[in-house]
Amino acid sequence: MAIEHVAVERLSEQFQRIRSLSEKLASKLQNEDTIIQAMPDVSPPKWHLAHTTWFFERFILKEKNPSYTPYNDQFDYLFNSYYETIGSYHPRHSRGVLSRPSMNDVYKYRRHVDDGILQLLEDYDDELPQQIHDLIEIGLQHEQQHQELLLTDVKYNFSCNPLLPKFAEEKSDNDSNTKSETTFVNREGGLVEIGFTGVGFSFDNERPRHKVWLEPYKLASHPVTNGEYIAFIEAGGYDQPEHWLSDGWATVKKEKWKHPLYWRKTEDGWYTFTLRGEKKLNLDEPVCHVSFYEADAFARWSGKRLPTEAEWEHAMSSVARDGNFVESEDYHPVVDESLSSSAFKKAYGDVWEWTSSPYTSYPKSKPLEGALGEYNAKFMCNQIVLRGGSCATSKSHIRSTYRNFFPADKRWQFSGLRLAEDLS
Amino acid sequence: MAIEHVAVERLSEQFQRIRSLSEKLASKLQNEDTIIQAMPDVSPPKWHLAHTTWFFERFILKEKNPSYTPYNDQFDYLFNSYYETIGSYHPRHSRGVLSRPSMNDVYKYRRHVDDGILQLLEDYDDELPQQIHDLIEIGLQHEQQHQELLLTDVKYNFSCNPLLPKFAEEKSDNDSNTKSETTFVNREGGLVEIGFTGVGFSFDNERPRHKVWLEPYKLASHPVTNGEYIAFIEAGGYDQPEHWLSDGWATVKKEKWKHPLYWRKTEDGWYTFTLRGEKKLNLDEPVCHVSFYEADAFARWSGKRLPTEAEWEHAMSSVARDGNFVESEDYHPVVDESLSSSAFKKAYGDVWEWTSSPYTSYPKSKPLEGALGEYNAKFMCNQIVLRGGSCATSKSHIRSTYRNFFPADKRWQFSGLRLAEDLS
Amino acid sequence: MAIEHVAVERLSEQFQRIRSLSEKLASKLQNEDTIIQAMPDVSPPKWHLAHTTWFFERFILKEKNPSYTPYNDQFDYLFNSYYETIGSYHPRHSRGVLSRPSMNDVYKYRRHVDDGILQLLEDYDDELPQQIHDLIEIGLQHEQQHQELLLTDVKYNFSCNPLLPKFAEEKSDNDSNTKSETTFVNREGGLVEIGFTGVGFSFDNERPRHKVWLEPYKLASHPVTNGEYIAFIEAGGYDQPEHWLSDGWATVKKEKWKHPLYWRKTEDGWYTFTLRGEKKLNLDEPVCHVSFYEADAFARWSGKRLPTEAEWEHAMSSVARDGNFVESEDYHPVVDESLSSSAFKKAYGDVWEWTSSPYTSYPKSKPLEGALGEYNAKFMCNQIVLRGGSCATSKSHIRSTYRNFFPADKRWQFSGLRLAEDLS
Amino acid sequence: MAIEHVAVERLSEQFQRIRSLSEKLASKLQNEDTIIQAMPDVSPPKWHLAHTTWFFERFILKEKNPSYTPYNDQFDYLFNSYYETIGSYHPRHSRGVLSRPSMNDVYKYRRHVDDGILQLLEDYDDELPQQIHDLIEIGLQHEQQHQELLLTDVKYNFSCNPLLPKFAEEKSDNDSNTKSETTFVNREGGLVEIGFTGVGFSFDNERPRHKVWLEPYKLASHPVTNGEYIAFIEAGGYDQPEHWLSDGWATVKKEKWKHPLYWRKTEDGWYTFTLRGEKKLNLDEPVCHVSFYEADAFARWSGKRLPTEAEWEHAMSSVARDGNFVESEDYHPVVDESLSSSAFKKAYGDVWEWTSSPYTSYPKSKPLEGALGEYNAKFMCNQIVLRGGSCATSKSHIRSTYRNFFPADKRWQFSGLRLAEDLS
Repeated sequence: MAIEHVAVERLSEQFQRIRSLSEKLASKLQNEDTIIQAMPDVSPPKWHLAHTTWFFERFILKEKNPSYTPYNDQFDYLFNSYYETIGSYHPRHSRGVLSRPSMNDVYKYRRHVDDGILQLLEDYDDELPQQIHDLIEIGLQHEQQHQELLLTDVKYNFSCNPLLPKFAEEKSDNDSNTKSETTFVNREGGLVEIGFTGVGFSFDNERPRHKVWLEPYKLASHPVTNGEYIAFIEAGGYDQPEHWLSDGWATVKKEKWKHPLYWRKTEDGWYTFTLRGEKKLNLDEPVCHVSFYEADAFARWSGKRLPTEAEWEHAMSSVARDGNFVESEDYHPVVDESLSSSAFKKAYGDVWEWTSSPYTSYPKSKPLEGALGEYNAKFMCNQIVLRGGSCATSKSHIRSTYRNFFPADKRWQFSGLRLAEDLS
Repeated sequence: MAIEHVAVERLSEQFQRIRSLSEKLASKLQNEDTIIQAMPDVSPPKWHLAHTTWFFERFILKEKNPSYTPYNDQFDYLFNSYYETIGSYHPRHSRGVLSRPSMNDVYKYRRHVDDGILQLLEDYDDELPQQIHDLIEIGLQHEQQHQELLLTDVKYNFSCNPLLPKFAEEKSDNDSNTKSETTFVNREGGLVEIGFTGVGFSFDNERPRHKVWLEPYKLASHPVTNGEYIAFIEAGGYDQPEHWLSDGWATVKKEKWKHPLYWRKTEDGWYTFTLRGEKKLNLDEPVCHVSFYEADAFARWSGKRLPTEAEWEHAMSSVARDGNFVESEDYHPVVDESLSSSAFKKAYGDVWEWTSSPYTSYPKSKPLEGALGEYNAKFMCNQIVLRGGSCATSKSHIRSTYRNFFPADKRWQFSGLRLAEDLS
Repeated sequence: MAIEHVAVERLSEQFQRIRSLSEKLASKLQNEDTIIQAMPDVSPPKWHLAHTTWFFERFILKEKNPSYTPYNDQFDYLFNSYYETIGSYHPRHSRGVLSRPSMNDVYKYRRHVDDGILQLLEDYDDELPQQIHDLIEIGLQHEQQHQELLLTDVKYNFSCNPLLPKFAEEKSDNDSNTKSETTFVNREGGLVEIGFTGVGFSFDNERPRHKVWLEPYKLASHPVTNGEYIAFIEAGGYDQPEHWLSDGWATVKKEKWKHPLYWRKTEDGWYTFTLRGEKKLNLDEPVCHVSFYEADAFARWSGKRLPTEAEWEHAMSSVARDGNFVESEDYHPVVDESLSSSAFKKAYGDVWEWTSSPYTSYPKSKPLEGALGEYNAKFMCNQIVLRGGSCATSKSHIRSTYRNFFPADKRWQFSGLRLAEDLS
Repeated sequence: MAIEHVAVERLSEQFQRIRSLSEKLASKLQNEDTIIQAMPDVSPPKWHLAHTTWFFERFILKEKNPSYTPYNDQFDYLFNSYYETIGSYHPRHSRGVLSRPSMNDVYKYRRHVDDGILQLLEDYDDELPQQIHDLIEIGLQHEQQHQELLLTDVKYNFSCNPLLPKFAEEKSDNDSNTKSETTFVNREGGLVEIGFTGVGFSFDNERPRHKVWLEPYKLASHPVTNGEYIAFIEAGGYDQPEHWLSDGWATVKKEKWKHPLYWRKTEDGWYTFTLRGEKKLNLDEPVCHVSFYEADAFARWSGKRLPTEAEWEHAMSSVARDGNFVESEDYHPVVDESLSSSAFKKAYGDVWEWTSSPYTSYPKSKPLEGALGEYNAKFMCNQIVLRGGSCATSKSHIRSTYRNFFPADKRWQFSGLRLAEDLS
């Protein structure tokens, strides 16, 4: 099956639009900023720019275009992230030592590969093979994931510098919106279906659509706010083991956690570091940069629980995919809920919401063929599912069936939570 | 509600029988053996003997008998394992430094607490409160769990000693049984129920019984054997990342795993260390001492998968609870399948079977009240469920709904696997 | 050259006397105590008993008696400490996993080797080759070193048990002696000689006697006392980086040191753990269980310095070798200075005294031939010299030229200090 | 005492010359290179540029010029290296996260401080207080030390990048010089003096000049060469524990050392990474990038030993201070010995020579007053003295009494060795 001319043209435009966003984000950095890696979990911005490019080169140009001239053969080693089946790669925790290729060189690499992809599209024009279409599409989704990581990684890197550099300028207009009251919305449950079906892109981990039995449940209208979370802190939540999972309590003690990542208590109240510099904490904003352990402990302390990913998806599948995404350039959750027309506010955007579900494969799921089968499936252990996207996610990247996942102790993503409860 | 005289008498006998098994097992050790802790995961045998005793003292005698005189007040610190809400405790990884109390003293402690419990039962006679009955019952189940741990911990400790001490003498009669062919048995699935219901003891993590949707599936008649596992090794399984979860592959490389724990390759073939000394590997025995990572990799390499815990329980719920348990004093899986009258051989006993299910709480589950709520619930993160009991489990301890759980990289339990497959 | 009958008889008696002290010390322990290793630096008492025996077996019986039947060939692996050139050995940090051979078996091993050595002496009678004489002598000096280590290791092990077991009973008569005033004694220095010369045993690291230039100096009459050290603590010494070596300050912060090892502050003043249980700190006793870092910081804070090992030896060479040794069975430094008839009190016994000298080889020194060349020479890096012996040292083991050595951060030996000063 | 006009003018010129070398070296780097820190021992080049500037600002401008306006108050935290007594500082191992201040900003900082110092000199003109003179002098010596570190740190950083970037272009003219034969030169020893005396700059650790007794000895005419070191490798030196210090052997096994740092064996022979890229190893060049452990093991294997620092200084004090320094811009040791007119070749420059001497204070030495007392004295533990300077040292920085020091396992400096021997 081949793709028609109009669709190819649309893909070409989409390619250019998504690729250029990476460079727009990077343009806010100085060259020195693009190489730092303040902890093993983050990657230097320059690495993100090169790795996403390598993805197109390695999986499309080198596979599908026999006449393609690679930009630099060593890049297969430097910019492969974790695809074991196609060769060895530079250790993840050492990406910060790669001062070369320079930013200048990485931009040349991007041009070289962009030209290659666009030429490929032009050559095929109205008979683009479905497989190449799909590879370009996954490459673009992949790039959008790295755009989000670039933002969260820069935030982490900058937070480790006592000068507290700003990624973007402070916004003059303060967020004066008010939050409506949080309520709990009933859902009947029963034998429902979750998972992707229909047209458009989805990852292999969202498929196949399948049946799940849900007991009746309630789901909160809003994510938990900073103000609500401070009540937990002030009630001694971080000193009381009874709310915590065993591994969570061990982490609290080892890491000396007393509050979410990036928070700082002053005589003048709580402050938080953002991509626009440190600012006073807005109590009505969704809490973010909490780990699964903290989300779970907060929920227990509240007498509630986290939703399963099936509960979340079942409730949110009919909610419009609007919200505070990367396009709004806030780079931080906001109070404003005007974009959320449903009973569920902020279902999409603002903060990723931790569910109670470990990340596992769906019944009868099939990973992609070949090396891209490593994209998702091999991480299905020791990770927890998050749903809904964040203020650093592209709007075109998210959907109700989308499954994000991180280990239970990670906090540098824009991760928050929404409460659920059994309907007795 | 109170318990009748006959039931109390039965409980009293059960108490004495289970408590005496701990001492019978310990009697095979020299005093020096009872204090070693060769890795943080294991506990010294003496600690097991004292901790299980402390459990009865702390949760029953101190709570329910105002006139009880504690044996030694410091034991609350020394022998509390992980109950955060009742006070601080000696660090787990340092149990091996506690040469005192001596074994002699620990036996006195056991007598002191045994006397206290038996007197309590006698005093209540035919009006034993249900709550005390339940606490004694959970104390006995707890002791049975530690009897299994005592065996697996001694095995690990002894394996680290180049003298390879034997816990029990070699058996003269070799296992000359033959294994029947492994087949796959179909199950229709559908909207089924799992979880404990009915009478008798169950842990809070097995409740409540609840609905689960299962797609049709096939489950192997037998656990995977040593011979089948060797085929995986010889095919290069430990050198091929494509079969492994990402965390599993990282563990293989870091730990330099090349085969299951306790195996050793010689010119004369494979040997394995057992509680009866090192012996030649029997190819027809169920493979054991594999981690979840190895079980999962083997399954992928086989073109199959691990069953979910719901699939396992649904298939095994009607299988008779017979098998090779601690009572047979083999302390090792065997080939003999004569005890398994069902199509599913060795469903119970021999080896715990890794499932693909992360350990999570059942819908609407309620942990026990008070400190015993810490027994199970707080471990529901970063652990995988195993089912069916092993050759170190007491027969009276296991049932189809029983959920054991360990982190994905642990191998010192008698852990094996049984394959499953989608029914297309 | 051969040794005469009388000398052989004396050696035989000495052998039996020294060997029996090891067992006398061990007899105060329960079997469970003999296997624990609370940190990698210490060895289990049972290991000391076996290793010292192995030393005689390996370097004498196996080398010099062709008809000797080894007790157990695996002991060469288990009980070799660090002699790389004669084969591999069990890792030091894992000695605590060796519950077997049992204590009973180790005592049989000791009998077997004792019989072998005594028979060898009897066989040679009045023509014992010098080399065998020397090997037995070094074996006995070696055993005395391990007797001291057995005591310091038991002390450390017991200190990690909240029950604070006692190695020996508390002494009823309290130390009511009074300390004379500390003064500083002048020494002219000049071109002096240090190092062993003359008859009797010495280690290779004490030889050859050689010239050293010393500027005029002053040396304190007494070791620093607990009371003097408390003044340093109360002046904030552990919070002030200016007194500390860089590595020392890093250690203070990492280990959170606030006082010497084994000390505990209560409302009732300072207590210290001893081999006779915890007791109130006697302010006039020599301070002990301080690291080189602490000794050095105390000296700087005092406006003084530590002596070099040459200064120490030059001053103490004419002082009688009397003091509080293991024979007095105090197992702790005392106030009583009646045994010290010189101007220098407690030069020998009570506490090892840190010098400022890194442990290096003397000019033109020659390590022993063969594997015993590893005894001392290979440790001449990253260690500091201590002088004078302690309350855990045998009187017959110490002399003015004796060089003990430990890394700068170690505190579990009976290590204290004596101040020195330039004579301007 | 004040300094005259001519001397002040000379100091001003020297200041500008030395400060500009730092920038000349840095100019060979791209901005991305200036921020990386591939291991905790190295610092990012940008950090060196800022820290050396801070040294002048903090110890001179802030102390001596009341009207000085600091460039940025936070730099006291960011660019203090280890001066505990003047405040806290950014952790050493995290210097690589400081992408800001940018290089551009650091250059502005340098201009600001340079202007301050030059203005200060101009203001004082012909009555510059001695103390300020001395502080500027130590600041310049300090900057020269960091220029050497900048080179060795860049070399290490670049070596971790598979692209093997070049700091400077390859030299077209290969080193075709020939090496004269290595001989051993006798020295009588006796009661000699070492340590700095006379005029000009010296560090506090070189003073006071003092008497030392030396036995007669022999010292090699040349440093050990690559060819000689390869003989050690090929004889199995890295596999034979008998040559190694205990800590050295442990390091060899842990780090899997098989050859000096930066070497790589190919079918075509040995290659080494240099600041001018990877090149074939020249067998006649002095071996470098060996640790003290390797230097010591090589010497033992050779049947020789390392010289003490007193032996080295006594022999080299009359040798002219010529050699291959940073000024020759080789950035690597060379074969050419034409610059060394003495019997001792390459005494200065090319490679630092490990001595056998632990780094300790000289008798009656006095550290500098105040915070600068931390410059040297607090490192006098667990370090070994090296002598003679290297190809990365400024010629004006070295002298016969100069004491460099590093821990025994460090290899990233240009460190080699010269053999010595007892004169029997």
